[in-house]
Amino acid sequence: MTSLQTSMKSEKKPVSKLRIPHHDLLGIDALSPDDIGTILDLAEYYVVQNRRRSLPSVLLKGMVIVNLFLENSTRTRLSFDMAAKRLGADVINMTTDGSSILKGESLTDTLKTINAMRPDLVIIRARAEGSAEEAAKLIEAPVINAGDGTREHPTQALLDALTLRRHFGMLEGLRVAIVGDILHSRVAHSNLHLFKKMGVEHSCIGPQELLPLGINGTQDLDAGLKDADAVMVLRIQKERLTEKLSFTKEEYFQAYGLTAARLQMAKEKAVVLHPGPMNRGVEIDAALADDPARSLITTQVEMGVAVRMACLDLITRGQRGA
Amino acid sequence: MTSLQTSMKSEKKPVSKLRIPHHDLLGIDALSPDDIGTILDLAEYYVVQNRRRSLPSVLLKGMVIVNLFLENSTRTRLSFDMAAKRLGADVINMTTDGSSILKGESLTDTLKTINAMRPDLVIIRARAEGSAEEAAKLIEAPVINAGDGTREHPTQALLDALTLRRHFGMLEGLRVAIVGDILHSRVAHSNLHLFKKMGVEHSCIGPQELLPLGINGTQDLDAGLKDADAVMVLRIQKERLTEKLSFTKEEYFQAYGLTAARLQMAKEKAVVLHPGPMNRGVEIDAALADDPARSLITTQVEMGVAVRMACLDLITRGQRGA
Amino acid sequence: MTSLQTSMKSEKKPVSKLRIPHHDLLGIDALSPDDIGTILDLAEYYVVQNRRRSLPSVLLKGMVIVNLFLENSTRTRLSFDMAAKRLGADVINMTTDGSSILKGESLTDTLKTINAMRPDLVIIRARAEGSAEEAAKLIEAPVINAGDGTREHPTQALLDALTLRRHFGMLEGLRVAIVGDILHSRVAHSNLHLFKKMGVEHSCIGPQELLPLGINGTQDLDAGLKDADAVMVLRIQKERLTEKLSFTKEEYFQAYGLTAARLQMAKEKAVVLHPGPMNRGVEIDAALADDPARSLITTQVEMGVAVRMACLDLITRGQRGA
Repeated sequence: MTSLQTSMKSEKKPVSKLRIPHHDLLGIDALSPDDIGTILDLAEYYVVQNRRRSLPSVLLKGMVIVNLFLENSTRTRLSFDMAAKRLGADVINMTTDGSSILKGESLTDTLKTINAMRPDLVIIRARAEGSAEEAAKLIEAPVINAGDGTREHPTQALLDALTLRRHFGMLEGLRVAIVGDILHSRVAHSNLHLFKKMGVEHSCIGPQELLPLGINGTQDLDAGLKDADAVMVLRIQKERLTEKLSFTKEEYFQAYGLTAARLQMAKEKAVVLHPGPMNRGVEIDAALADDPARSLITTQVEMGVAVRMACLDLITRGQRGA
Repeated sequence: MTSLQTSMKSEKKPVSKLRIPHHDLLGIDALSPDDIGTILDLAEYYVVQNRRRSLPSVLLKGMVIVNLFLENSTRTRLSFDMAAKRLGADVINMTTDGSSILKGESLTDTLKTINAMRPDLVIIRARAEGSAEEAAKLIEAPVINAGDGTREHPTQALLDALTLRRHFGMLEGLRVAIVGDILHSRVAHSNLHLFKKMGVEHSCIGPQELLPLGINGTQDLDAGLKDADAVMVLRIQKERLTEKLSFTKEEYFQAYGLTAARLQMAKEKAVVLHPGPMNRGVEIDAALADDPARSLITTQVEMGVAVRMACLDLITRGQRGA
Repeated sequence: MTSLQTSMKSEKKPVSKLRIPHHDLLGIDALSPDDIGTILDLAEYYVVQNRRRSLPSVLLKGMVIVNLFLENSTRTRLSFDMAAKRLGADVINMTTDGSSILKGESLTDTLKTINAMRPDLVIIRARAEGSAEEAAKLIEAPVINAGDGTREHPTQALLDALTLRRHFGMLEGLRVAIVGDILHSRVAHSNLHLFKKMGVEHSCIGPQELLPLGINGTQDLDAGLKDADAVMVLRIQKERLTEKLSFTKEEYFQAYGLTAARLQMAKEKAVVLHPGPMNRGVEIDAALADDPARSLITTQVEMGVAVRMACLDLITRGQRGA
């Protein structure tokens, strides 16, 4: 039973010296390429640690983290919960289906209340754009954005980057195609910020109504996949399909659903990512999603825990005097 | 990383010697003025500890606390959860929206089941008066009442008292006005018990239907505020307004909503408390609630965690051989 | 503060040498009589430990256990949660009312996601038969079945066996009557497997529609109770009564409800078990359920925590190098 701190000393790379100059993690937009590299480097360390099962870690022992999920997201909440507990922190989960929390009081009052309880760190997922910024203003402890409306979901972009960097050995020069509802996707937005900072080329593919202005976009899946090293398939919300697009599921799958056949338009060894949970048979073919030679979807989940451990570790180094 | 036990030795006041002669904490009614003073003194210590962040504490290490919330109360549940984890305990949260727990079995059977699992402490919030008493009878471990129907909510009164004592330097001789639905408010009931024991004068203000008999009550807000050092505004339940009082929100605000202007009827430096969550613009004006010179509402939340840490600590001293 | 490991050394019986040759605990069906004896022996040790309150234990320190309850069962979830925390593990609760988890993705995808997060152990309760088997295939860490559809609920049968063995001093040669919906009861199914392995005789009593073929069954409660040392009363689902049987509650109670009077048909000192939660006045008379001379129902709950501690301990011995 080796403590994490002991293990860290025995690593060649002095992970204990890694730093990012940020009090909060609100979006990829605010990170420098160096910050991103630092997070990914430390995450690599945690991937190894988790596989070795050489934990328990006492790094965050005594810290109480509030996992404030004002919008339902079992997967992301679970990943942060796992990451925090792996590092030895205590976690208080506050979840809601978005209807009402704290008997209908405003987000501002909820955040002030949480701050007054003096947690050591707050992770926030909320429906409204700017929620994470507001949390960072009102909460003295560090705040990590776990997705605010359609704006940013930085740890998702970081885990995608880690997945790609591990698969291809580097990020710079890669070409990634993003397929689906780019307009409303915080996953896409955070990834586009990251691509720009890290020298990753991209194409965006989707129905015209779901493509924002000013991006490299196309409605033609085959054209957009050309020369792609990786394809990020986004989850399509069923309500959006029928209400906004008057697409049936079958029509959407026909036009934008990724299959092994369509993937041949990309590079020969192109890989597939999806932030989950998947609508199999709608935005992605089930067989392709399960193809170990092409799909990195399960790897993404593993990288998610490691990236979040890295973020929790780095963001609390000031507090811990580390 | 100093353990709480070590820190305690270095304090001038020997907090380790504080005791209250109670197995459970069911209501203010059962506490002596000395008990209340002891809890507040120890809570002062935890306020300092929490601000210093000189935790982690191992005081309750190995203890498993069941947080049984049979009525929805995110704020109180969170505060107890935070307090318990700050002291190093493990917490099992059992929450429900009040509809059914354990597939419709009775409270008695639920409590017997929990007791048979041998938790180290049980915190209970329930809709029925006397639930906490029943829990204390059926559960061998200490029980803390987190609000039972309209009867008592002792930790709320204790945190209010701590907030007032810290602000004014003492409790005795203060005059506190309570505004709202006194009749149905366990917060008011616990506070009225506490006021009597600690020599605090009071006035109760609200619609006649919501004033219990035998208290110092008035329907006239301005008259009731006279000479008040502090005003406790109670949350008004919207259902009660419309169904029982045929008041609109606007009419209630007109008659009993506290504003900076109305507050001028009280003493010059009178302060405002509210147990939260607030209905802004119904029982309290938003600007007044946010006025740092007048509102102690956020301070109450902070004091809540400290008071609950003190209660958890004191109530378990017997078990811990401390 | 004695750690569990230290205490274990001082016990006469070397509990540290107990082993079962299984990676997962999916059903009683797969256990040998020796395995069952081993689990019960270790559970005896934990009963003593829990009563002594000589914890905290650090046995599973650093382990993160996912408590995946895709079907509502507060009681079983709580028991596993308590058992895991008593052993020092961290627990991540994933609960749902069965409607949708992870936004409608399949159980397979949910299990793959959980596996990719590398938990140390997964406890699963799910509505579909075979869910636990699927979990064991997809998850590298050990899996414990906390009830899969109508198939098996092994820890319930083990806690029933522990309750009986402690009461009668042995299992072999006992005669147990099971009353109620045998057909749909995973509790009954797991118990029938266990009875066969441990030399316990049985009779099954219930309406014909609820008796599976090939068991020793009767529709006559009085006849079935004859010579029984113990009676296991099963919870009857109200929907099943009215929809499938066109029984009212009163008619069911008349025919199959166990009372002190009916129990006289069994052996003189026959005892009563019920997995809980009870429908008092439907399948069991309230007075009988509360009779300390006859009812072992509360004891079952206590044994449940001890049996689950034993299972968690044994199933993780390989991982822990213990």
